[in-house]
Amino acid sequence: MENFADRLTARTRELGHPLCVGLDPYLLQIPPRFHGVSESDTALNFFSEFLSVAGDRIAIVKPQISLFERMGIPGLEVLQKLIEQAKALGLLVLLGAKRGDIGETARGYAEAYLSPNGFLDVDAVTVNPYMGLDAVEPFVELAQSNGKGVVVLVRNGNPGSDAFQLLESNGQYLFEVVAESLVRFEERLMGNAGWSSLAVTVSARSPEDSVRIRKKLPRSLFLVLGYGAQGGDATSSTAGLRRGKQGFEGGVVNSSRGVLYPSEPGFNSWESAIENALMKAIQGLKQAHG
Amino acid sequence: MENFADRLTARTRELGHPLCVGLDPYLLQIPPRFHGVSESDTALNFFSEFLSVAGDRIAIVKPQISLFERMGIPGLEVLQKLIEQAKALGLLVLLGAKRGDIGETARGYAEAYLSPNGFLDVDAVTVNPYMGLDAVEPFVELAQSNGKGVVVLVRNGNPGSDAFQLLESNGQYLFEVVAESLVRFEERLMGNAGWSSLAVTVSARSPEDSVRIRKKLPRSLFLVLGYGAQGGDATSSTAGLRRGKQGFEGGVVNSSRGVLYPSEPGFNSWESAIENALMKAIQGLKQAHG
Repeated sequence: MENFADRLTARTRELGHPLCVGLDPYLLQIPPRFHGVSESDTALNFFSEFLSVAGDRIAIVKPQISLFERMGIPGLEVLQKLIEQAKALGLLVLLGAKRGDIGETARGYAEAYLSPNGFLDVDAVTVNPYMGLDAVEPFVELAQSNGKGVVVLVRNGNPGSDAFQLLESNGQYLFEVVAESLVRFEERLMGNAGWSSLAVTVSARSPEDSVRIRKKLPRSLFLVLGYGAQGGDATSSTAGLRRGKQGFEGGVVNSSRGVLYPSEPGFNSWESAIENALMKAIQGLKQAHG
Repeated sequence: MENFADRLTARTRELGHPLCVGLDPYLLQIPPRFHGVSESDTALNFFSEFLSVAGDRIAIVKPQISLFERMGIPGLEVLQKLIEQAKALGLLVLLGAKRGDIGETARGYAEAYLSPNGFLDVDAVTVNPYMGLDAVEPFVELAQSNGKGVVVLVRNGNPGSDAFQLLESNGQYLFEVVAESLVRFEERLMGNAGWSSLAVTVSARSPEDSVRIRKKLPRSLFLVLGYGAQGGDATSSTAGLRRGKQGFEGGVVNSSRGVLYPSEPGFNSWESAIENALMKAIQGLKQAHG
């Protein structure tokens, strides 16, 4: 069975870039033409159209469960539909959920997201490590048996994350200690294309930290957060990735608002504005690769 | 408006004990008489009956969203019903969700759980601090405007949590640094009964850590995890609480499996087994108070 890392690597090599687009329903920014009878309806209209337009240009999308959960059961039903649509288009789906719990409770989440017939059957899910490795273990187990991926929060880009992630202990930052502890999972989830289905978050805003994490985890995929609207440029976003023949490898670079809700004026249709935003995000990454 | 801390304190004083019961649907342990046509149906039958039997003996219940989410949309619908039922019985509801995210995404969760008309409108929710205080802030904001509570993970009792929570930095453990950073939220959420609607998790298995946290956060409520089946006795569970006239104050002591799925033999009905388990958990806390 091809695992998550193999599927992702094959697809990003084919496309020549590692762009991931975050599916974040900011309802106030969705153009009026998509507005439906309810918030969840609006989100469905908008993202369905987005997936049709962009589906063959990217390898992976990252819906953010929180913003669907905010809309209640109808929102979660829309999320289910969008995940199905994305998979039908050949896209990989990484669920932004940042779950973290232990024992049976963590297993509950893992079964919901990483099992065929699970509530939201996706390719990978983000996980929070504050409660330790036994909070990550149930996800790794299911990832291993079902060819899925696990993305552990290691380094984040929001200003507040420095307070804890940059605490120093024995000459290492907390995020480095967390990264180092994940080596065992990197090994367990190794694929055939040179990369592990264990992934970690890194921030486009701190490329030097990405390099430090890469030293600890040479084979883990990176989920680079904050490219585009959140201030990271293509060079700093790709600091921990590997320069492969067909573009960057070893991770994906996520942009959400920059692609979904482009602010550049002068386009006479939503499609052309989106095409332009997508193209710019992709070209940025290709140029950084050189 | 009475805030979460005031409502909780009034109710635990009335009852004379701080027991909280975790509503964790371990389907294999639910007695056959409750089995329905589906897993979610079974969970509904079981917890509805539990709430009817136990509702006037405890102040607060803590459903664990993960185990409902595992059952998909029907599971979440059951969770909605149980929350309504618990509130109708006058119980407070603390949602075990351990969410942690930033900005709009954290706000999405906060609106889902801490808003009237939210997806799951509860009295308080657990939050993960790994991403920093800006991951907690949106919950505190809504708690402040809506009289709700926020429970931040500080110290956990699972063996793996020591790896990060006990990292030392400048002579302090990580969990102490986290606790200290929360003082500002403790102040913002102060109620009238002497306690704040800012709460933190502590472990029944490390009473000395609870005492350390109490020094940092004199007015925060404690959610003590691991009483009963998970190995914590009543004395170590109440280490950081205050000996009030009418029982312990300043937190709740959670038991899930020990009360829900009692293993003591010799009872000829489920009701009497549950009554006995509840009584023992409550008596244990009352005796520790003396």
